[in-house]
Amino acid sequence: MQNFVFENPTKIIFGKGQIPKIGKEVSRFGRKALLVYGMGSILKNGIYNQVADSLKKAGVDFVDFPGVKSNPVLSHVQKGIALAQKEKVDVVLAVGGGSVIDAAKAIAAGVKVGHDIWDLFTFSQPVTGALPVLTVVTVSASASEMNNGAVLTKEDGCQKYCIVSPFIQPKVSILDPTVLFSLSPGYSAYSAVDVITHMLEGYFNNTAFKTPIQDRLVESLMKTVMESTDIIMEEPDNYSARANMMWSAILGFNGLTTAGMGRVQMPAHMIEHSLSAIYDIPHGAGLSIVLPAWMTWALETKTERLAKFAREIFTMKGRGSKAVAEKGIACLKLWFESIGSPVSLKAANIPKNDIDKIAENAFALSQVWFYEGYSKEVIIQILKNAC
Amino acid sequence: MQNFVFENPTKIIFGKGQIPKIGKEVSRFGRKALLVYGMGSILKNGIYNQVADSLKKAGVDFVDFPGVKSNPVLSHVQKGIALAQKEKVDVVLAVGGGSVIDAAKAIAAGVKVGHDIWDLFTFSQPVTGALPVLTVVTVSASASEMNNGAVLTKEDGCQKYCIVSPFIQPKVSILDPTVLFSLSPGYSAYSAVDVITHMLEGYFNNTAFKTPIQDRLVESLMKTVMESTDIIMEEPDNYSARANMMWSAILGFNGLTTAGMGRVQMPAHMIEHSLSAIYDIPHGAGLSIVLPAWMTWALETKTERLAKFAREIFTMKGRGSKAVAEKGIACLKLWFESIGSPVSLKAANIPKNDIDKIAENAFALSQVWFYEGYSKEVIIQILKNAC
Repeated sequence: MQNFVFENPTKIIFGKGQIPKIGKEVSRFGRKALLVYGMGSILKNGIYNQVADSLKKAGVDFVDFPGVKSNPVLSHVQKGIALAQKEKVDVVLAVGGGSVIDAAKAIAAGVKVGHDIWDLFTFSQPVTGALPVLTVVTVSASASEMNNGAVLTKEDGCQKYCIVSPFIQPKVSILDPTVLFSLSPGYSAYSAVDVITHMLEGYFNNTAFKTPIQDRLVESLMKTVMESTDIIMEEPDNYSARANMMWSAILGFNGLTTAGMGRVQMPAHMIEHSLSAIYDIPHGAGLSIVLPAWMTWALETKTERLAKFAREIFTMKGRGSKAVAEKGIACLKLWFESIGSPVSLKAANIPKNDIDKIAENAFALSQVWFYEGYSKEVIIQILKNAC
Repeated sequence: MQNFVFENPTKIIFGKGQIPKIGKEVSRFGRKALLVYGMGSILKNGIYNQVADSLKKAGVDFVDFPGVKSNPVLSHVQKGIALAQKEKVDVVLAVGGGSVIDAAKAIAAGVKVGHDIWDLFTFSQPVTGALPVLTVVTVSASASEMNNGAVLTKEDGCQKYCIVSPFIQPKVSILDPTVLFSLSPGYSAYSAVDVITHMLEGYFNNTAFKTPIQDRLVESLMKTVMESTDIIMEEPDNYSARANMMWSAILGFNGLTTAGMGRVQMPAHMIEHSLSAIYDIPHGAGLSIVLPAWMTWALETKTERLAKFAREIFTMKGRGSKAVAEKGIACLKLWFESIGSPVSLKAANIPKNDIDKIAENAFALSQVWFYEGYSKEVIIQILKNAC
């Protein structure tokens, strides 16, 4: 185990009937909120009204800022920053999934800077402050509700980059598993892929490797996510399955599983960012294409680690570690397909001829993230495994 | 899964060479600290000097308050409160294990009250504030370094009671696994028993029971604690084993494993408190006596849960759940004995004739904790299983 600092102060309020508590929580941090949400599903399913009533009861004034799309974009966030500044809000409340929460975080940080907010995402300027962020979660996948990251896409150049700062860590997040009942099978599947990939990137790409407890946490969470998702596909309103998925999503990417793992790289995320930036496909769908392709590429260099994965998750046995590892990759693809998430570029209608362009885009991000070992040629090799 | 609130803001700084960071962390909370420690081992092993130098470099003044004994007592804490008030300290820094941290927490809370501090422990008065508490951990077991509880013994009446409040949650805890290298085999074993019992109480005594992720976390942590302790018994200075144990101890009792489990009772702790209050034996030694005795008592009412434990932890198989459960209890006793922790009253030199007196004492605590189902007769039955 390597040295680490773990600090995660977000207050989680979890369970059915908890959304009406949001007003009181917001009022601890200010009197006027920017209410950030997406394309309007919360207006139809009653969540908007629950939140608005709760804010009013707590005496919190608020201004709506709807319209955050999946894979949130810079131009929209810039409008949010302008509105937050004009309205002099003192809190940002996100009601949505990872995209909405990330947009809210970017707005909260952007309000505090005089320069181009994109400078924070290229790491050319540090995040030096943010308005307090609170969330009501409606899609569980990114764990953005309990971590310090946010991802944004700059349309010009198709750059999907991120910021990481304790300033944007949510103060309070409310999670009611019943709001997931209406989540489509597709997004339920993509969420599972996202949660699993967050954990497996750390599992495969850490520099410590003597981390039995972290390994076991990842394996435990992954088994729970798979088991819960299988139930959800049959019974979308199974509370226990949705609740276990919702809590696992948080634990899978709130710093817990990677504590002590040393430096962790996320190459599948790096390459996937190019897919969703260029083709605007769901992040999870992109990950189910890239992750197995990356694993196949890593077969020679990370044989033992991949074999351990196959043994623990899919109870695969066999003499040679490489053969066992290959079976593990095949099982993972099989499972992704079984829940309806694509495992090839073709299945997501991405032309094979675009590989060069995608690799160019991903390589640019590898430079921003200081990832060594991912030349354009390597990325092309990985993408070819997804054909 | 049942509704829950999870909030654990303690900053953990983990790893070798981290103790010199304590001064800077303390200085974020005040300029004068009460330095609480135990019977002087930190003076011999150099930790005191590391802490004192770090405080001086950070410009933090400090007053020593040594002498906390294992199973810390009220009279000593009262002296600490008087000293803290007289010296007008604004921070309490604990350097030690669970006893020292608990004493520091009690002092931090006690400074703020005008009435008898014991009223907090009988729950007749609420904790309404506390000085900031920081810790440097030298024994890993209680997880007090990352939770909101503290246990104290009132010598008059042999009452070993607790307080629970967010005010006493440590702000920062520094954990360097190398300080555990010199921990005796006995205390290394008792620590493992304590960590395991914290988790198993929740595993056996929760009211939700549809908690696959929590169950898997407990099983993962328990396997890691057992595996690490077996290594530690052979190689006390194995860094990886000590580090995995140190981190598992925290995760086992910082609220993570019980989130969503609903109401959790800790009957083995309740009864053990009487053993260590009356006979001043190490807490872990008392737990390895009481826990298997309690499990034997629970065999009829919690058969399935005990069988699950046997299957998951000891890979026990068999037709009847009760037979499997019995094998699990036997294995646990065997393992406790193998690391040198007692599994009978006799092994701890506690006379069988005292059972009535012990049960009387434990029953009084069951009333303070509002535990139903633990009459004096029931407690006698459990204790007889430890003969």
